[in-house]
Amino acid sequence: MIAHVLAAEAHLALNGKLPLNLKFLVEGEEEIGSPNLAPYVEARREALAADAVVISDTSMFAPGMPAIVYGLRGLAYFEVEVQGPGHDLHSGLFGGAVANPINTLCSLIASLKDEAGRVRVEGFYDDVRALTEQERAAWAALPFDEEKFRDSCGAPKMVGEEGFTTLERSWGRPTLDCNGILGGFVGQGAKTVLPSKAMAKFSCRLVPDQGSEDIGAKIKAHFEAHAPEGVKVEVRELHGGNPVIVNAEGVAVGAARAALAEAFGSDAVLIRSGGSIPVVSDFSAILGIPVVLMGFGLPDDRLHSPNEKIDLDCFFGGIVASARFMELFAATRG
Amino acid sequence: MIAHVLAAEAHLALNGKLPLNLKFLVEGEEEIGSPNLAPYVEARREALAADAVVISDTSMFAPGMPAIVYGLRGLAYFEVEVQGPGHDLHSGLFGGAVANPINTLCSLIASLKDEAGRVRVEGFYDDVRALTEQERAAWAALPFDEEKFRDSCGAPKMVGEEGFTTLERSWGRPTLDCNGILGGFVGQGAKTVLPSKAMAKFSCRLVPDQGSEDIGAKIKAHFEAHAPEGVKVEVRELHGGNPVIVNAEGVAVGAARAALAEAFGSDAVLIRSGGSIPVVSDFSAILGIPVVLMGFGLPDDRLHSPNEKIDLDCFFGGIVASARFMELFAATRG
Repeated sequence: MIAHVLAAEAHLALNGKLPLNLKFLVEGEEEIGSPNLAPYVEARREALAADAVVISDTSMFAPGMPAIVYGLRGLAYFEVEVQGPGHDLHSGLFGGAVANPINTLCSLIASLKDEAGRVRVEGFYDDVRALTEQERAAWAALPFDEEKFRDSCGAPKMVGEEGFTTLERSWGRPTLDCNGILGGFVGQGAKTVLPSKAMAKFSCRLVPDQGSEDIGAKIKAHFEAHAPEGVKVEVRELHGGNPVIVNAEGVAVGAARAALAEAFGSDAVLIRSGGSIPVVSDFSAILGIPVVLMGFGLPDDRLHSPNEKIDLDCFFGGIVASARFMELFAATRG
Repeated sequence: MIAHVLAAEAHLALNGKLPLNLKFLVEGEEEIGSPNLAPYVEARREALAADAVVISDTSMFAPGMPAIVYGLRGLAYFEVEVQGPGHDLHSGLFGGAVANPINTLCSLIASLKDEAGRVRVEGFYDDVRALTEQERAAWAALPFDEEKFRDSCGAPKMVGEEGFTTLERSWGRPTLDCNGILGGFVGQGAKTVLPSKAMAKFSCRLVPDQGSEDIGAKIKAHFEAHAPEGVKVEVRELHGGNPVIVNAEGVAVGAARAALAEAFGSDAVLIRSGGSIPVVSDFSAILGIPVVLMGFGLPDDRLHSPNEKIDLDCFFGGIVASARFMELFAATRG
């Protein structure tokens, strides 16, 4: 948002006025699924009336190569707890005779995916919209440097669902990833405890037309069907958001593409993102106006990781792009 | 040990002398595998020369029912670390395209056991000495209250290797139990992190004639064979100890059984224990003298768990048993 504020200040400093009216909407709950944002937008529909929404929470395709994002993945986030014995036990005296909640949890997590990287939850892929041949061709034509991408992850090798490229896997296919796991003794050295419980957090990135509520029900059914004897298994859905595809052909997106080309000296590419911005579908549905996803990050910004950064060229280019977008979009409104 | 010290003090207070010579050996490293004890016993073989070793680190069979333990399980304790990406990643931007170390770790842990509770590590059961028909019959004749045992664990149901009873599973069969697991975000709420690594601790209780070094090599080979692409897997063996069966027919054990019967008013039963006391086999091998496992705990003492306890009847009975053992064993030595 800071790029748009600075762009507005530049207009005011140069011309004493803005080329169009601006409304800023600021909230701080995105990482917990923005539970209050949709109700707020719904309640303030008139005050928020506008010609377009601009969100700058996406990335460029590469340094110097701006992008308009037309698709985002959704999210369904879960916590599972496995309770075995009522208290920690001595693994010698009881080991072999009671269910171990960590072993059980690992088996349950392992049951969620097969070796080809596909999610084994029944019905998980039912509503997945297939990538079009045009999309696959367009993504394959992008100057994507797989080796550089792998290097930026620090991973020994890129791996994922069989039959799809790295970009297809991260933009257009659903996932199931553990985000955290904890149980028993995790300090230095050895403790021969047979723990009473274990916990894991995991989440699915969803693609159109999967729904986070539907996936939540299917995940819960999977755990109910697979929970073995000797333990209690509880699954809670912590939050969710639906995937979205936005219209990339409208006037607002056209103004954004032109502004990005001027600011960065390179045409903006049309891409999807693997991330989730649940409010995008809420804005479209509640306000009925186009959403422009014009962001200035880079794929190696280490989002949600230590040493997160923003590139200064992207930051300053973003201010210029935002200022030009205001002028160009204003011009289309007469 | 405190029971033996108090028994010795009682002899000194009553008679002004002990019925035999006592040597106390105290060490505090058992929970890390007693790495220095065997070398110490080896180096001090002459100073430690004796007619028998008494260890009171085992349990009675039930309140009022003392026991001599003639078999202990061994231990092989491992730590495994799975490293995926070089740093934590955003699960939206990268999820689906890189191996997730928690999912991978769970699959590896799950691969270690089948649904019938058997360890799937190749060769794991090669050296397992089968339970004799006599042992199985003797254990089946013990007044074992399965429902009370289950209740003391607080487990919904007793489960374990198919084809064996609860006592057989915990005394006479090898195990593989996770002791701890950790990876990613484990605080309250949701964080969509794709973590760079995950760790687990697990251990096998071993039975005669398995060897902890041999099992360690087989476990490592299993992980090498099953580690998938896209991650680095490292397995470290933290410590180990061999299982042991001691002679339950000798003069020292006979004196202990008589002392226990007098102290508790009930004959001592001959049982095994699922726990591990690695030094037992070292004492036998290095000093060449009988080891008497005469302990005063109870199965519900919550060893290695919060609210660990010792029953006062067992404690006072243990002092009496120890004092009488000194007299009875001394008498056999003329």
